[in-house]
Amino acid sequence: MAHLHPRTQLSRESIFAQMSRLAAQHGAINLGQGFPSNPPPDFLLEAARRAIGSVDQYTPPIGLPRLREAVAEDLGVSPEDVIITAGGTEALHALAEALYGPDDEVVMLEPYFDVYIPQARIAGAEPVMVPMQLTERWEVDLPALERAISVRTQAILLTNPYNPTGSVFSRAEAQRIVELARRHDLWIISDEVYDELYFGEPPVRFRELAPERVFTVGSAGKRLEATGWRIGWIVTPPGLAPQVAGMRQWSSFCSAAPLQAAVAEALPIARKEGFYQALRESYGRRKDLLEQGLRSLGLKTFSPAGTYFLTALLPGLEAQTLVREAKVAIIPGSAFYLHNPAPQGLFRLAFCKTSDEIEQALERLGHYLKQVTP
Amino acid sequence: MAHLHPRTQLSRESIFAQMSRLAAQHGAINLGQGFPSNPPPDFLLEAARRAIGSVDQYTPPIGLPRLREAVAEDLGVSPEDVIITAGGTEALHALAEALYGPDDEVVMLEPYFDVYIPQARIAGAEPVMVPMQLTERWEVDLPALERAISVRTQAILLTNPYNPTGSVFSRAEAQRIVELARRHDLWIISDEVYDELYFGEPPVRFRELAPERVFTVGSAGKRLEATGWRIGWIVTPPGLAPQVAGMRQWSSFCSAAPLQAAVAEALPIARKEGFYQALRESYGRRKDLLEQGLRSLGLKTFSPAGTYFLTALLPGLEAQTLVREAKVAIIPGSAFYLHNPAPQGLFRLAFCKTSDEIEQALERLGHYLKQVTP
Ligand SMILES: Cc1ncc(COP(=O)(O)O)c(C=O)c1O
Ligand SMILES: Cc1ncc(COP(=O)(O)O)c(C=O)c1O
Repeated sequence: MAHLHPRTQLSRESIFAQMSRLAAQHGAINLGQGFPSNPPPDFLLEAARRAIGSVDQYTPPIGLPRLREAVAEDLGVSPEDVIITAGGTEALHALAEALYGPDDEVVMLEPYFDVYIPQARIAGAEPVMVPMQLTERWEVDLPALERAISVRTQAILLTNPYNPTGSVFSRAEAQRIVELARRHDLWIISDEVYDELYFGEPPVRFRELAPERVFTVGSAGKRLEATGWRIGWIVTPPGLAPQVAGMRQWSSFCSAAPLQAAVAEALPIARKEGFYQALRESYGRRKDLLEQGLRSLGLKTFSPAGTYFLTALLPGLEAQTLVREAKVAIIPGSAFYLHNPAPQGLFRLAFCKTSDEIEQALERLGHYLKQVTP
Repeated sequence: MAHLHPRTQLSRESIFAQMSRLAAQHGAINLGQGFPSNPPPDFLLEAARRAIGSVDQYTPPIGLPRLREAVAEDLGVSPEDVIITAGGTEALHALAEALYGPDDEVVMLEPYFDVYIPQARIAGAEPVMVPMQLTERWEVDLPALERAISVRTQAILLTNPYNPTGSVFSRAEAQRIVELARRHDLWIISDEVYDELYFGEPPVRFRELAPERVFTVGSAGKRLEATGWRIGWIVTPPGLAPQVAGMRQWSSFCSAAPLQAAVAEALPIARKEGFYQALRESYGRRKDLLEQGLRSLGLKTFSPAGTYFLTALLPGLEAQTLVREAKVAIIPGSAFYLHNPAPQGLFRLAFCKTSDEIEQALERLGHYLKQVTP
């Protein structure tokens, strides 16, 4: 009988989609999936309304020239090295196809962002997982990272700022990772979709440390709070953009043309008008609200240095029960682990929600904890 | 040295992108790439301007519920069987990943639409090409199609209406293809992105003949003249949508949210207000203009029954020279052939351009032909 290819088994509903569905079903507050409750900024919306009706046909697969230029200008790179993609997700997909195949390995850290594993496997490669160490904070285990590298390793895949841990690599850590990659001659894929979302020093950009081997992934959806617009980018080492862009031409051909035009207009405005600074301040307040709330419930939290996620220990609790009974949706740590066990009681909570939502979620959690704690 | 995966060799610049680039460079009239010169209809643009600012975050990967419903309503299928994709291109990509893998074969007709081959190869499968017969019209060679089927064949991939030939399968041909697929228990992928663009009887919908084995591919970009919006769909056999949708969640996660909302609003309006009928009439006039013009230049044309493409014989001419010297961009037939030779002098010309552009292109061609013909 005609059958689906076994790789469709990789295509179970993601935990994020599932928790959003359950949240809607049970009237729960959704601190699960990472999309903001606030609307995108007006300067972006207005640019899009203007582009609709004037930029409506295919753009080159590598991207609308003015958007490639705007991204390049923003990041201080050459437009020749910029590829526009359908979100960070398609950027990562194109890179998996461009960099790995059967018999290759790709080294990643655990906890990992969910698309990394199926994308590597669809390309035919084997993910090799190195667990982060969690004591008082999340730390990369550099010796374990080096031990994970074999003759088959093609690339190291990193997230900075890091979803779900909220951590940011120190410059020293980043330099040691880059040295490793140089010594073993590996590519680095640096997923920097949260590049503008940090609470201390700006995160290291891996490309600045090793432009010859770093592919950077970015996301206008994350930066400009329009996750549904599906505009992202790749910055490649010099000379490689056309070949990598070729891969995305077979997946979605090009990104939504009017939205590309709008993001091209919005990127310089966001930079000039201090939009990211304001966003950091606003998220910083909501982070503090969530973190202090959890601590006052007696829970252990790991303070994030970036992203809009916070990890915390809620020992003995279970996500499916929480969404139903406490009416709060959060993501269990196990969703981010493939080979190694997740730390006991680990959860990820998103604070890209309104302060009201965060306060209500805390109240509901507190209420629920009182009920279940003897 | 770290290297790109050899599959990036599949990622040369497509002939369509190349000819569009050359057309711009040489100030040529572009009858190459299939995007319309006219803007999308106002009812679509207005719906999009309203959706911008209200539907901006992630939708489920399988699609915005109201768009799945609108597509289902339009096609007379169940919304459960509809997946929204980033254009017909991503629909075809997700199907390649969902249906084939290494050691599988997929049977297609030649000339073929360009993404079919790299998508099959990226999934690991081998395309097996069956040439169409070209005498006075394009015809499918059913005995050759049957001979091409082996124990490894997973699917037959068809285009109806057919780019680049402009042909449409007769009901009898469609029924014989479906019988073949039933006998050998194969999937059928029916690429119907031009479903509303025909000049005689409405084309057969393969799904109606074999709902249990047909995957239909559609495109709002083609239907509503917004090729850059990247909204397409798959209709699956009953029960298979979640698994296939899972594949696209790893390529672009979801389609542009506000544009999904706009298409959901526009599809019933397009149907009710006779938009497709008007489009067919307008394209019919431009088809006649182009075809009569070519004939009066003494060229042989193959009258299309659907799509906005026409095939013609321009013996002895060369596309790269034409774009430079005649300042008209058209696509050489060889671009659509992999294993078999293209008919001598075959070209594809797009008439989704304004009448003025078509008239000017004809004038330039006539002028050029006079110069080069002794
Ligand atoms: C680490 C990381 N990378 C990539 C993505 C995908 O970004 P996009 O929405 O631009 O596809 C996400 C989304 O949550 C993410 O957290
Ligand atoms: C036969 C065929 N299938 C699929 C597509 C891709 O459609 P979309 O623009 O919706 O990705 C095209 C575009 O030209 C086509 O001609």
